[in-house]
Amino acid sequence: MTLMDTGVADAYPTRIPGNPELLDRTDPTVWGAASDGPIDAATLASHDAKGYSIVEGLLSPAEVQAYWQELVRLSADPALNADERVIREKQSRGVRSIFDVHRLSEIIDELVRDPRVLDRARQILGSDVYLHQTRVNYMPGFKGAGFYWHSDFETWHAEDGMPSPRAVSCSIALTDNYPFNGGLMVMPGSQRTFIQCAGETPEDNYKNSLKEQKTGVPSEDHVTAMAAEHGIDQFTGQAGSALFFDSNILHGSGNNITPYPRSNIFLVFNSVENALLQPFAAGKPRPDFIAGRDFTPLRR
Amino acid sequence: MTLMDTGVADAYPTRIPGNPELLDRTDPTVWGAASDGPIDAATLASHDAKGYSIVEGLLSPAEVQAYWQELVRLSADPALNADERVIREKQSRGVRSIFDVHRLSEIIDELVRDPRVLDRARQILGSDVYLHQTRVNYMPGFKGAGFYWHSDFETWHAEDGMPSPRAVSCSIALTDNYPFNGGLMVMPGSQRTFIQCAGETPEDNYKNSLKEQKTGVPSEDHVTAMAAEHGIDQFTGQAGSALFFDSNILHGSGNNITPYPRSNIFLVFNSVENALLQPFAAGKPRPDFIAGRDFTPLRR
Repeated sequence: MTLMDTGVADAYPTRIPGNPELLDRTDPTVWGAASDGPIDAATLASHDAKGYSIVEGLLSPAEVQAYWQELVRLSADPALNADERVIREKQSRGVRSIFDVHRLSEIIDELVRDPRVLDRARQILGSDVYLHQTRVNYMPGFKGAGFYWHSDFETWHAEDGMPSPRAVSCSIALTDNYPFNGGLMVMPGSQRTFIQCAGETPEDNYKNSLKEQKTGVPSEDHVTAMAAEHGIDQFTGQAGSALFFDSNILHGSGNNITPYPRSNIFLVFNSVENALLQPFAAGKPRPDFIAGRDFTPLRR
Repeated sequence: MTLMDTGVADAYPTRIPGNPELLDRTDPTVWGAASDGPIDAATLASHDAKGYSIVEGLLSPAEVQAYWQELVRLSADPALNADERVIREKQSRGVRSIFDVHRLSEIIDELVRDPRVLDRARQILGSDVYLHQTRVNYMPGFKGAGFYWHSDFETWHAEDGMPSPRAVSCSIALTDNYPFNGGLMVMPGSQRTFIQCAGETPEDNYKNSLKEQKTGVPSEDHVTAMAAEHGIDQFTGQAGSALFFDSNILHGSGNNITPYPRSNIFLVFNSVENALLQPFAAGKPRPDFIAGRDFTPLRR
């Protein structure tokens, strides 16, 4: 454990010179109990062990269609053309993600407060929660680029000042996820290990890292060791299903050469008891649209 | 049907200016009968409909290990360092494929004459067969590049002068194929359609096309139409299983960011009644190590 300039002890040091190591996570994965919300005891135990859980049909087909239309509308909105919250593919320039999307879309703002989503996030984190990040992702067919293995928490800790991995992401599929169109891969159980990453964080790193991550990337040796220990699970399933996954689970995705696009809504809930401090391994915090600093608890 | 300079009618014109089209294939997929070899009637009928069939455990675990060691030996052989038959990854320079491999390896030369392989090829093609191409493929973990949708026959016809799609490929897995480590995807039934491709063939096209194909690539509209009609099947299974697939089936593969490499032996059998002519849409034929011109029937 190292001590920051601010005097805060850092249980998860990263972006270090020298040889990064695998550290045991000290914090729990699940903070709440079965009696606290809609997740039953068996699912909660499985989430605790694997670092993720799936809710089939969280959205109805009609809801999927409504959200899909919302995504189409947003990606074509000329008012968002030059908006920094819109991230484009490096090569094709197509829209890849739109951040802070609950502020741009009324129905997504409703979704983050929907009990099907909010109550599960509160239950897993065992407290009130606020939004650390929201976005919609578009992976086009034919040329959709994947994302190499990483832990979200590693970045949120280093660049946003999130103290502990007491955050959970909810990814809601708006398209069918096949095994072959770039669906999310996770290493179940890997959330129990914090993988230190080598190297210093470049200034304004987020401007490139949202398209292709070069800092905060685990070594191939560490990815190999984690795969040997945990194996790989892939998130497949029909549009409308939701994946809740731990902020520190090792995950990635392949590219997509099929004609089937892949889109999802991505919501990150953080415990109000885990509010952001100063970045643990970067010069200045990332902008609010990537790492929210309004810690007001979400209410229905 | 167009007429070549040589006076040979061309049922499969491609690399054309203007708007390429989808053409119905006139030739059969399966030329032999169940009584001709080891493939039973049901499997043969399925191969006819889908354009592929799978033989689980064609190689025993001990054989897989022997062939795997052979691949390791070949890729490390300094005598092959500058050999044109060795194709390397564009970025990493790692070995991607070794062509003409039955001439470089005694045990692979035995394999092409093995009744488990040869008798099936003869049965599907309904005649004596010879080797159009052999190679071993290495797809490394972490950075293995995939291959975009294509028909092999389109290239063999245009650049090698193969008259008809009376050829079959046999891909034998030497590593386990998961859904997520870049396994082959095929569109079942697509072998019944010849997808014309636009554009002229550049000189010495093979020097680049073996790494990344830019000519002989179907349009996205055609790939979308074929996927809508046929769907996508993925070749997964244990090391030692074999996939026999039609020369004209539309297939491709995604990239591989997992730590699990993927290797296979790839053998292309052509009917002796379908021997190569001059290229149908290229200046000069490709070299012998890519498109064999020894039409002597293979014997055990």
